[in-house]
Amino acid sequence: MDTEGLIDRLRTALGDGAVLTDADVVAGYSRDMMPLAPAGTPLAVVLPESTPQVQAVVRACAEAGVPIVPRGAGSGLSGAANAVDGCVVLVTTRMNAIVEVDADNRLAVVEPGVVNLDLRAAVEKHGLFYPPDPSSYDWCTIGGNIATNAGGLCCVKYGVTTDSVLGLEVVLADGEVLRTGRRTVKGVAGYDLTSLFTGSEGTLGIVTQATLALRPLPQAPGTLVAAFGTVAAAGTAVSRVVREGVVPSLMEIMDSVSIAAVEEHLKTELGAGRGCAALLLCQSDSGGEAARAELARVEQVCADAGAELVHTTFDLAEGQLLLAARRAVLMALEVYGTWLTDDVCVPRTRITELIEACERISAEVGLKVAVVGHAGDGNMHPTIVYDPTSADEAARAHRAFEDILAAGLALGGTVTGEHGVGKVKREWLAREIGPVGLRAHRAVKAALDPGNLFNPGSMFDQDPG
Amino acid sequence: MDTEGLIDRLRTALGDGAVLTDADVVAGYSRDMMPLAPAGTPLAVVLPESTPQVQAVVRACAEAGVPIVPRGAGSGLSGAANAVDGCVVLVTTRMNAIVEVDADNRLAVVEPGVVNLDLRAAVEKHGLFYPPDPSSYDWCTIGGNIATNAGGLCCVKYGVTTDSVLGLEVVLADGEVLRTGRRTVKGVAGYDLTSLFTGSEGTLGIVTQATLALRPLPQAPGTLVAAFGTVAAAGTAVSRVVREGVVPSLMEIMDSVSIAAVEEHLKTELGAGRGCAALLLCQSDSGGEAARAELARVEQVCADAGAELVHTTFDLAEGQLLLAARRAVLMALEVYGTWLTDDVCVPRTRITELIEACERISAEVGLKVAVVGHAGDGNMHPTIVYDPTSADEAARAHRAFEDILAAGLALGGTVTGEHGVGKVKREWLAREIGPVGLRAHRAVKAALDPGNLFNPGSMFDQDPG
Repeated sequence: MDTEGLIDRLRTALGDGAVLTDADVVAGYSRDMMPLAPAGTPLAVVLPESTPQVQAVVRACAEAGVPIVPRGAGSGLSGAANAVDGCVVLVTTRMNAIVEVDADNRLAVVEPGVVNLDLRAAVEKHGLFYPPDPSSYDWCTIGGNIATNAGGLCCVKYGVTTDSVLGLEVVLADGEVLRTGRRTVKGVAGYDLTSLFTGSEGTLGIVTQATLALRPLPQAPGTLVAAFGTVAAAGTAVSRVVREGVVPSLMEIMDSVSIAAVEEHLKTELGAGRGCAALLLCQSDSGGEAARAELARVEQVCADAGAELVHTTFDLAEGQLLLAARRAVLMALEVYGTWLTDDVCVPRTRITELIEACERISAEVGLKVAVVGHAGDGNMHPTIVYDPTSADEAARAHRAFEDILAAGLALGGTVTGEHGVGKVKREWLAREIGPVGLRAHRAVKAALDPGNLFNPGSMFDQDPG
Repeated sequence: MDTEGLIDRLRTALGDGAVLTDADVVAGYSRDMMPLAPAGTPLAVVLPESTPQVQAVVRACAEAGVPIVPRGAGSGLSGAANAVDGCVVLVTTRMNAIVEVDADNRLAVVEPGVVNLDLRAAVEKHGLFYPPDPSSYDWCTIGGNIATNAGGLCCVKYGVTTDSVLGLEVVLADGEVLRTGRRTVKGVAGYDLTSLFTGSEGTLGIVTQATLALRPLPQAPGTLVAAFGTVAAAGTAVSRVVREGVVPSLMEIMDSVSIAAVEEHLKTELGAGRGCAALLLCQSDSGGEAARAELARVEQVCADAGAELVHTTFDLAEGQLLLAARRAVLMALEVYGTWLTDDVCVPRTRITELIEACERISAEVGLKVAVVGHAGDGNMHPTIVYDPTSADEAARAHRAFEDILAAGLALGGTVTGEHGVGKVKREWLAREIGPVGLRAHRAVKAALDPGNLFNPGSMFDQDPG
């Protein structure tokens, strides 16, 4: 089948309006939010509305030998959704039905194109809670969240996306529909294919439906902010909170560069002028006395670690303002240039060392590096600011990005805590998992996608050598 | 290589004392605790003490074309650890070192032969908690827990084994050592092979080391017991507790057959004589006011659902006595005959229907069926009592076992909530996951174990047709 034949077949299956080939339109679907990752030019973009339509696309592309790159909203930060030349980009955003909310069994069944925030709002009406909350929660899709095993601020208490996925419907490379998992909260019948597909970055199949576990809606949170004169003191506080067994519902860290940027952006005062080197932001959603007790323990730990200021509030609006400061960091950095955010996760005792490594790398490359992150998990997002119109700055930014990964690995961490490997960290994945790990990955990929149809060249190269 | 050559090679690699071939001794390692599953006669039993020794066994068996059946303590209830004729049974109990407890990062690194209770005790000294608590926790091993993705009473709040596994060291079929996962609490570098191996019942590789996430030690629990005149009322209470968003640390149900057996066994009074049809046992380990509030809500729910008696205690000894009654059910049933325990998990709203189905099945086969289970998860263990010396009773027991699985599936459940598929539920796995699911399982197995070396014929037959 030639490419014209393929396009015709796709149009017949999906309707003209669901198959895009105009170069400008198609370009808008060719990359996600990671500037460093390569992106090719797709042959076409398809927007199926149902599982049978996805099956039709998969069968047509498989027969034509044309690769498929699946994509949700495109909020990813690894290039996993970036097109390869001549591919079909399969966009799941039109499959956006919340099929079912079963409040009595605390689960929801959704299509992949449902926006994270829309699901949150829908289940909140039932007094329920869908925890995963990546920064892009107001526009990213559940399908993308599953593909990347997305995290967020909630993870310290509620885990990542995989912890909320009970089962999946997946279209495989032969066009057949696989159903993994179940609607029950426990189950060990067969291999855990649900977890295998979750985080597989679109390389093993197309998720067309997901059964998600929901939690009781937590209590309104109390919020604590602590300011430290040194990064080391803040790092000590994080370690001690973990050690003491307090499990806050959120524990974020901002370094001095982040603080200064946010102060400038929001015209507020967070302590940068007073020599504040790091802020810790902590919440408890346990409610009532339990929340007060948890935050009191965190307060004590922070004071013991040398915090210069600790403030706890149960005023919701004040808590939201503090959280808004944390959420504003990337936006705030745009005052200085384009941001390039990294994603490493280190053991929670080694956060200080990672931040210090970032300070060193920043000095070496001569670029601003702001460190923000999910301190409670050790998942840090050092963010490099640079001028993309300067080839020299871009090269230095790229070098810093890689040096930060090396530092994370050297501290016993991983090269991606929640953004994924995609097309930007393939070599780093290989370095982290080693040759035996890579061989196992290739074997699993070949087993489920023998023609290398799905997202070829993402996460790892399938052909060794 | 002939089998003599293989035995010689194993003796050279492991030492004479670690290679058992005496027929009587070997027979003791040929099956687990599931009487219905077939078991063959092993060629030899090996007890390696290190990862290199496991590698040597795997390489020798692979070259000789002799299958390996891995095994921990043998407490399993699915026949997964049962020998096949002419195999080598690889027992991991001598690899029982707790390699590391990193209290600051709340993790432990252990060998597979560590007994669950020993790990619990070791981490408790650090104020930490390893949640998975299968009934056999005082003698089952972590390796077996990982192979079966074991559950227990803790799951309603703390999840199953896979939720506590951060990473694994696995010897693959080619003798190479694969390291999956990481020491950080988050990480999305590559496929989730850790979850794939967890629950794979020894069919994909030999786990030789595990990195486990630990939790803060919970507070001493408060305990509630509620007695209901009908199973339906108890089922309603469970549904409402779930619906209300209360997450107890334990929520168990016992039906009237279980209650009567325990009363007789422990010479205690639990209400059977007063027409008690079901007991709910519930704990909260949230501590202080939070625990009191949680149990007060459960108490209210039970009263609203028509409980005839509700009693809450914060006296530890009394709570332990109540829990001991629940834990004594299987032992108590031995008064009547041999027990055969089943394992289905249904949506939590359908527990009543499952128990009623078990009552019907009991009447049909003319055998006592006691239902106990983890009500908070919908994971029920209907237990059939029969006389194994009577072929007729054994056949009826087998029929009841299967009818219970069919009832669980028909209620939207799974044929195994926590015991696994093993050699006793292969046909039921195929029925639950369907032909596409089975094909995916075979593809994954062939990818990682192309020679079908590990536990062949367990979970599913590798050769279709």
